[in-house]
Amino acid sequence: MKGLIGVLGGMGPAATVDLFNKFVTYTAARHDQEHIPLIISSIPDIPDRTDALMNNGQSPLPIMQRYLHTLEEAGAECIVIPCNTAHYWFRELKDACHVDILSIVETTMKEAEASGKTNVGLLATNATLHMGLYQKSIEERGLTCIKPDPQSQDNVMKSIYALKAGNITQAKTLIRAQAEALFSRGAEIIVLGCTEVPVILADAVRETPDKYIDSTGSLVRAGIRWYEQRVGKHHLLAQKIN
Amino acid sequence: MKGLIGVLGGMGPAATVDLFNKFVTYTAARHDQEHIPLIISSIPDIPDRTDALMNNGQSPLPIMQRYLHTLEEAGAECIVIPCNTAHYWFRELKDACHVDILSIVETTMKEAEASGKTNVGLLATNATLHMGLYQKSIEERGLTCIKPDPQSQDNVMKSIYALKAGNITQAKTLIRAQAEALFSRGAEIIVLGCTEVPVILADAVRETPDKYIDSTGSLVRAGIRWYEQRVGKHHLLAQKIN
Repeated sequence: MKGLIGVLGGMGPAATVDLFNKFVTYTAARHDQEHIPLIISSIPDIPDRTDALMNNGQSPLPIMQRYLHTLEEAGAECIVIPCNTAHYWFRELKDACHVDILSIVETTMKEAEASGKTNVGLLATNATLHMGLYQKSIEERGLTCIKPDPQSQDNVMKSIYALKAGNITQAKTLIRAQAEALFSRGAEIIVLGCTEVPVILADAVRETPDKYIDSTGSLVRAGIRWYEQRVGKHHLLAQKIN
Repeated sequence: MKGLIGVLGGMGPAATVDLFNKFVTYTAARHDQEHIPLIISSIPDIPDRTDALMNNGQSPLPIMQRYLHTLEEAGAECIVIPCNTAHYWFRELKDACHVDILSIVETTMKEAEASGKTNVGLLATNATLHMGLYQKSIEERGLTCIKPDPQSQDNVMKSIYALKAGNITQAKTLIRAQAEALFSRGAEIIVLGCTEVPVILADAVRETPDKYIDSTGSLVRAGIRWYEQRVGKHHLLAQKIN
């Protein structure tokens, strides 16, 4: 299938649903057949990424590589991975892969830069922060990165794991205060640098889209553009994206 | 992957998102790794099912069989198809498939029967109605099937195609009146026998879950039970399902 996009998902499943939903709702399709073709692996037995990086837990890389190959064998011509923390292994995944992979960090940072804001808040996992996945890109662009203080960051992690366990109400309560704290410390815009966070903060993003960069949304927009180029169709990316 | 469920989707994509979302939210998982493993084909170039059956359009069967085999090759041990109309070809698909396929008509009718109601409304595509996919099952159980009149049915189809084109507001407006008409004609419960309809009527189903049988929801519940049996885990199906 020309232009088939493979989704290496399940990290976690709710974030993969969110990516899939955005692929469908951000595409200006008039009928089923115009939608973006996707093959989605949501096989969630991949070891926890933060646990691997912060607590010396089992590496998720071999299983991610296996599912990546399943997607390639199914005909995927481009891969997207709706998990920011997993991008710590981006180079190894790219080396193991025979087709394009779009980096969520790159697509997100392009949108952050295009926003024209200089004080950029960051909501992400402990591991994404610890590995500097976003801070480096933010600072390379001459922007300032505002991260939660340690106690706030504990609540960000609790919120992310609450969503993974299906407790959306608890997840929302825990993270809203952390976003507000970043704004009160001078953040003009917040990068939602963990794919669970746009799910948890969906209402806030809908109400004030200019205050957030949704990493999942940026990856989807890049995926739709990749597909447009691949198949020579244009104007598939809906203008109303929030 | 033991217990991997393959989703033959893309008919349409929004209905496939709905099924995926229900798999995630109906599973009582405490962390990523406890969720149901899924491999989802949302490749929407499958010819329109209603057009094939009602207007002698191109048959979707060969392409459905091809994607079914892709899911089998990716390791799926059970297949679900979130499209009621596609179940016209259920026997041919089952014959072409080497693993279990759960029938959405069967899972839906089991829940309809368990509701204890005798007057059953039906919202479905022209083709599903014309082929009698649900009416036969309803009448075999000694229940009465209440279908929309021809003009109402036109609006049901317009609503379904509006959702496929991303016009959720128009889709809602068009179908709500048709559901009300079925209730006013004596329906005690309505079978949402097209997987687009639970997406369009999501608010109504959430408000009064006892008035609807959601075919997508029934397929997901059956899929989670299949997985529980396959891997010997129990209590994965969340009690709060609506």
